[in-house]
Amino acid sequence: MTARSITPLQKKFYEVIFGTETPAGKWFDICLIMVILSSVTIVMLDSIWDLHATYGELFWRIEWVFTILFTIEYAVRIWCSPNRKAYVLSIYGVVDLLAILPTYIALAFPQAASLLIVRLLRILRIFRVLRLVAFLNEANLLAGALRRSARKIFVFFSMMMIITMIFGCLLYVVEGPESGFDNIPISIYWAIVTITTVGYGDVVPVTALGRAISATGMLVGYAIIAVPTGIITAELASGLRGSHRTSRNCSQCSRAGHDLDARYCKYCGSDLPPLGREGD
Amino acid sequence: MTARSITPLQKKFYEVIFGTETPAGKWFDICLIMVILSSVTIVMLDSIWDLHATYGELFWRIEWVFTILFTIEYAVRIWCSPNRKAYVLSIYGVVDLLAILPTYIALAFPQAASLLIVRLLRILRIFRVLRLVAFLNEANLLAGALRRSARKIFVFFSMMMIITMIFGCLLYVVEGPESGFDNIPISIYWAIVTITTVGYGDVVPVTALGRAISATGMLVGYAIIAVPTGIITAELASGLRGSHRTSRNCSQCSRAGHDLDARYCKYCGSDLPPLGREGD
Amino acid sequence: MTARSITPLQKKFYEVIFGTETPAGKWFDICLIMVILSSVTIVMLDSIWDLHATYGELFWRIEWVFTILFTIEYAVRIWCSPNRKAYVLSIYGVVDLLAILPTYIALAFPQAASLLIVRLLRILRIFRVLRLVAFLNEANLLAGALRRSARKIFVFFSMMMIITMIFGCLLYVVEGPESGFDNIPISIYWAIVTITTVGYGDVVPVTALGRAISATGMLVGYAIIAVPTGIITAELASGLRGSHRTSRNCSQCSRAGHDLDARYCKYCGSDLPPLGREGD
Amino acid sequence: MTARSITPLQKKFYEVIFGTETPAGKWFDICLIMVILSSVTIVMLDSIWDLHATYGELFWRIEWVFTILFTIEYAVRIWCSPNRKAYVLSIYGVVDLLAILPTYIALAFPQAASLLIVRLLRILRIFRVLRLVAFLNEANLLAGALRRSARKIFVFFSMMMIITMIFGCLLYVVEGPESGFDNIPISIYWAIVTITTVGYGDVVPVTALGRAISATGMLVGYAIIAVPTGIITAELASGLRGSHRTSRNCSQCSRAGHDLDARYCKYCGSDLPPLGREGD
Repeated sequence: MTARSITPLQKKFYEVIFGTETPAGKWFDICLIMVILSSVTIVMLDSIWDLHATYGELFWRIEWVFTILFTIEYAVRIWCSPNRKAYVLSIYGVVDLLAILPTYIALAFPQAASLLIVRLLRILRIFRVLRLVAFLNEANLLAGALRRSARKIFVFFSMMMIITMIFGCLLYVVEGPESGFDNIPISIYWAIVTITTVGYGDVVPVTALGRAISATGMLVGYAIIAVPTGIITAELASGLRGSHRTSRNCSQCSRAGHDLDARYCKYCGSDLPPLGREGD
Repeated sequence: MTARSITPLQKKFYEVIFGTETPAGKWFDICLIMVILSSVTIVMLDSIWDLHATYGELFWRIEWVFTILFTIEYAVRIWCSPNRKAYVLSIYGVVDLLAILPTYIALAFPQAASLLIVRLLRILRIFRVLRLVAFLNEANLLAGALRRSARKIFVFFSMMMIITMIFGCLLYVVEGPESGFDNIPISIYWAIVTITTVGYGDVVPVTALGRAISATGMLVGYAIIAVPTGIITAELASGLRGSHRTSRNCSQCSRAGHDLDARYCKYCGSDLPPLGREGD
Repeated sequence: MTARSITPLQKKFYEVIFGTETPAGKWFDICLIMVILSSVTIVMLDSIWDLHATYGELFWRIEWVFTILFTIEYAVRIWCSPNRKAYVLSIYGVVDLLAILPTYIALAFPQAASLLIVRLLRILRIFRVLRLVAFLNEANLLAGALRRSARKIFVFFSMMMIITMIFGCLLYVVEGPESGFDNIPISIYWAIVTITTVGYGDVVPVTALGRAISATGMLVGYAIIAVPTGIITAELASGLRGSHRTSRNCSQCSRAGHDLDARYCKYCGSDLPPLGREGD
Repeated sequence: MTARSITPLQKKFYEVIFGTETPAGKWFDICLIMVILSSVTIVMLDSIWDLHATYGELFWRIEWVFTILFTIEYAVRIWCSPNRKAYVLSIYGVVDLLAILPTYIALAFPQAASLLIVRLLRILRIFRVLRLVAFLNEANLLAGALRRSARKIFVFFSMMMIITMIFGCLLYVVEGPESGFDNIPISIYWAIVTITTVGYGDVVPVTALGRAISATGMLVGYAIIAVPTGIITAELASGLRGSHRTSRNCSQCSRAGHDLDARYCKYCGSDLPPLGREGD
């Protein structure tokens, strides 16, 4: 039995909490985003020592208000779901649970206070709302470009891992522990910091040879920063271009490449089939 | 009454001060840009302690010259505007006022000297001139690409906020206060510094695990730097390509936007004029 | 004699070790990748002083197991190659030998221990497997874009070398040894660090003029970072677009490369088969 | 008289020194590049204190050899030029003179030794050779893209100057002199270092508000780094695409967009005009 029959009241709650079409559903989503953001802000502020010392008590009380709100929401979500098990085991269900669990655990076991950081996962709940409300097309276009580029990006990252490894080992051999290149993992960390152009400056070459090699590494990094950009741009551009054209073929001359708003074949002037009949 | 009738003298001043078509208007704009830049330079030089100690008196006098010049200009602008209220309340009018107010306030209340920094807003007045004179097409193309990408960029920034939040919290938990990751806001500041590849080096991970996580974060940042670039490039390219479409209008339905290789109007199916007859 | 006749047993081994089509060949490749990665990990961990002090003995033993495994593999590869000389002298053959030699040399001459770092070249052996298994198309597309851009990138790097040289010398003259710009090579190193936006901060300008010049240099670097990106993107995009051409062959002259909207062969002028009949 | 009549010997020398078509001209160019690079290397090495102390005498002698070689070359160039005045006053002529003058001046006035740095301008002489030999097309394509983008890039840089000015002033007000933001020029220097993602770390915000503002600045910089990239990419891509297509129109159906290697119209199948007759 995958879907129970639900009462009209449950159906109404379901539409408000899970849906976005009704005005009430939209208001619920907006309130939820604001509660989530406030709750995350409180967790962040509480991590600042000065504020914790002064307002720790207050933060703790506000935190409980949020936790109780989220608990009620979680209970109602379970109650009104047509398929309770599917909801509880879905990623969204697990995140909803993780958003409330740490506060209760910290109450039961005060020594587990470091678990409270898990509450920051609440920010992930924003995705649920964003997923429903809007921006779906844009996210799809981006995700599509990333997915189509996935294999190219994998090839690119393999190349880059090997490049950072080579530069890291070179500097480890050339500079040695007295300049901070204590071991190979640190040297590879340095190579990643350098080639991605982050450049903290906590580990830097000091010998002439080391500097020459790392300057070469920077120029290489500068050149290959172009590669992932190029990959994604090319995919995005082809995605955009594709989304402005249909795959309609003219029934007379059977040629394609017509704009979305075209009604007549631009090559032979005969009628084009209406747009709705085929998928894009 | 939105527009008063204005005298010919007012009209003439209006053309010189607000317009750019007449030679006098162009000269006025060029002088204005130079006065603005000189005035901003003086404010900057005055902020250098050594120069302030030696030339402070001189700077203060030059400043008054500029302030009086701008005051006269402001008065003339109000006087010759067809619609005075609209000018005073427009953004440009407010900036024009903010450019002169601080000097007078500092005279009246010497303790409000820190307000003098507001004078730097004068640089915004340059926009007024640039807006009128030139570069309008280029700015429009850029603005168009940014506007069309706005939703995609919003999605991208939401993703990035969540990524920096996750990396910031991870490093807060892993490194802790003894490495400078004092609280979550500082850790998120570190994550932004790292993922945007700025890399100050004022807060850096020191543990092996922290370095491994931040290296991962850098590679992620390196990969996603491609995304906004790709978005804007794709939009700009599609904007440019759009400008390669012909300006041919169909002789039947007089609509434009036809591809270079189109022979029939895609909207009404009638013949298009051949391409050779008009320039691109 | 370029290829000896080989026994069926050798042929079978050859298919497993060098080939990827058979299931056994795939499993061999996967095992090989894992052994290579483990071996490289051990070398890295051994470079960390703490771990070396505690587990050095253990690492050395594991290292010997890997070395013996690789030696056996190397012997079998030679034995089952149809053309032994070609294998031994190929790049892959040399890397395979370099992967095992250092351990034996370190046994014979303990003072040559620093040679052990050469073992990290084993990571290059991964390429052999990747080359065979997959990702071939993606790597080809990337390599093609880089190859087509090679001359443009050379021109770009010549320009950048000269720009870094000019900025380096300017700062050397302006800042001088007391700010860390000890000599021209160091100043050029600083210029590369700056223009590639790495920005370690180990050498920074301190005078007003030096800072003004280096700010200019950063803006120049910021602008020209666009150039390699643009080059590679444009090439990649044109590569991708090329792959959108149809694979239709002209029935008369049997040449391909026709646009999607082409109706006649652009080489011989005869009719092309309609587009709908074959997939893209 | 713009061009004197020259003797055959002068013409021969002219072809070797200025030209690149003859084998002797090519060899001369290659030798010249190598002499220039050696000479620049010597100047750089001489700036290193240790090397100067040990080999200063030797460097000085080698330097004289190069100077005499360049002097002879300069004299021959003047002697064999058809139009001597034009050569001497051209940029190349001035650079050729600047390459030899400092050494003579340093001999006459030993206190002007700091002028010797000017010798590094010799590197600019490389351009003369590169200009002639090769890479002309690639450099033209790049230069064309930059030229077409010049106005867009100007608009972009104006925007960025104003953005850095705003962020610089904000941080000057928020952080003040005790964090190193001593005056407005330094704060603007900091803003440029930050927004271009160089991030030295010599001036960093330390207050919470300052960090929040600069994190915003980084994200803005991260987003707008896309703009110049996008501009140049779009221009390069449109340049590339253009260079793969001709502007030939079919004489039958008068449609354009044919590939460079097309001989027949892809739309109507009739002959295309041969490529040579019109420029691209």
